[in-house]
Amino acid sequence: MPWNVIRVSALRALLAPLESTNLPRMNVKDRLAAVQLDRHSYACVGLDPDPGRIPAHLAPSASLPERILAFNGAIIEATAPFACAFKINFAFYEALGSEGWRVLEATRALIPEDMAAIADGKRGDIGNSARFYAQSVYERLGFDLCTVAPYMGGDSYGPFLEFEGKGAFILARTSNPGAADIQEREVAGAPVYEWLVRQIVALPEPLVSRAGLVVGATRPEALQHIRTLAPGLPFLIPGVGAQGGDARAVMEAAFAGPGSLVINSSRAILYASDGPDFAEAAARNAKRLRDELNDSLKG
Amino acid sequence: MPWNVIRVSALRALLAPLESTNLPRMNVKDRLAAVQLDRHSYACVGLDPDPGRIPAHLAPSASLPERILAFNGAIIEATAPFACAFKINFAFYEALGSEGWRVLEATRALIPEDMAAIADGKRGDIGNSARFYAQSVYERLGFDLCTVAPYMGGDSYGPFLEFEGKGAFILARTSNPGAADIQEREVAGAPVYEWLVRQIVALPEPLVSRAGLVVGATRPEALQHIRTLAPGLPFLIPGVGAQGGDARAVMEAAFAGPGSLVINSSRAILYASDGPDFAEAAARNAKRLRDELNDSLKG
Repeated sequence: MPWNVIRVSALRALLAPLESTNLPRMNVKDRLAAVQLDRHSYACVGLDPDPGRIPAHLAPSASLPERILAFNGAIIEATAPFACAFKINFAFYEALGSEGWRVLEATRALIPEDMAAIADGKRGDIGNSARFYAQSVYERLGFDLCTVAPYMGGDSYGPFLEFEGKGAFILARTSNPGAADIQEREVAGAPVYEWLVRQIVALPEPLVSRAGLVVGATRPEALQHIRTLAPGLPFLIPGVGAQGGDARAVMEAAFAGPGSLVINSSRAILYASDGPDFAEAAARNAKRLRDELNDSLKG
Repeated sequence: MPWNVIRVSALRALLAPLESTNLPRMNVKDRLAAVQLDRHSYACVGLDPDPGRIPAHLAPSASLPERILAFNGAIIEATAPFACAFKINFAFYEALGSEGWRVLEATRALIPEDMAAIADGKRGDIGNSARFYAQSVYERLGFDLCTVAPYMGGDSYGPFLEFEGKGAFILARTSNPGAADIQEREVAGAPVYEWLVRQIVALPEPLVSRAGLVVGATRPEALQHIRTLAPGLPFLIPGVGAQGGDARAVMEAAFAGPGSLVINSSRAILYASDGPDFAEAAARNAKRLRDELNDSLKG
């Protein structure tokens, strides 16, 4: 049954507590490479369900959490053939409190087992707090990868690198205007993000092989610079599509083989149409992104 | 009925969805000052319930979420007379997924209405994501104040300052070893955290009057320096107690009148005893912290 006509009772059943999937305990980078080769895609679909943009026809008699889950289900089903990963942005779920967290858990369980599941929560704390956040995303929620904020330093992102078969993309250089405030401040001839990247690549095994970087798509020369600094680290690159990044330029600057990057697009896929064809339109845009990324490797 | 002998059925009722309390829409700094004057306390009790440290005798037949709620309820009841605020550390709840978020919501609802409720989640993202995180802590969960991570810059913490009657403590200088990795890197003669603080104090009204800083307790000279940079901003100061900060030194360095700081202690209060007297022991340590802080103002 297609997701956009699914019954409310079925949605409620999906909102029941779910066990996290058991994923193969391979090194996270090798697994990402395998998934990308297998699915011929470097595209990640960002699940950022904005309550104000859920198509009006979709389960109109259901509650908001149920409607969001129906939307996510339809998007996952329609776009999975063209993607290697799904990224769940926690902000959109937490706005609905614990009910939103139930939708998050149910959405996580809908991500096909042969794809990468990325928890985009940008957590960052120290000691026990960091360990509990890491347990939450990896063990309780069953994500393979997550995003982490590094302002508190190595003892804040370190605990996210201590889980076998899991990995963390650490915020390095983002493409928003505020990147200038901290990330791009110059310290002894190099920006703050460069010092951070140098510190991450210098981590011992197995920590370094569980680390990745979040790098914005809008300035390819910065991407290329960070690729030079961190030739072996996978990049999570948001900002292609609605935020204006150019797919070809990004691949030319940062691609270093399967497993070396994941390109995320959220709004340009999720909200390609607000009519009954929203899932087909999303699939079309996901396919276009996949093809653009693959085509740029042929040039 | 005391919290440590409360019936499981009553705990279950508390875990039902709760409406957030309606707090008076006063400027958050003035409200903090009023609460502190009214309660004669600058102490905040951090609710970091570690499942491994919940006293064994406490509701042993209940589920873990229920036991954590019973523990929090007992701690809040016992320590409220000596504190001006409670701080909920999200990490400890998220480790239990959506069930943990229900405990978080129920715990929030137990914080007395005449005290400040601080959401310690250290969120940080941009655009819609930042707005949804802010909605989550202020509107959905009903917190007065929250903590925010600034690595992505002004457009990541800015949205947390756009809610009337609410406010955000932005991570400035923390006391963990990793503070050296980013916060203390020197940019044109001043550490990164100083540039951040200068940017925050330069915000226009009403944003600046909704901003505060998280500043670690372990180096009083750094506290004093940041107080000079930001004479009017409230500080949230963790690290007194178990983390080794000295209450008197902290007050001397950073106190600038009612509303100017909140001193948090978590473990030293929560785990003062693991026996049936845990709540009384917590109250004793909360009272000791309150008295030490007040006494240091008399010297």
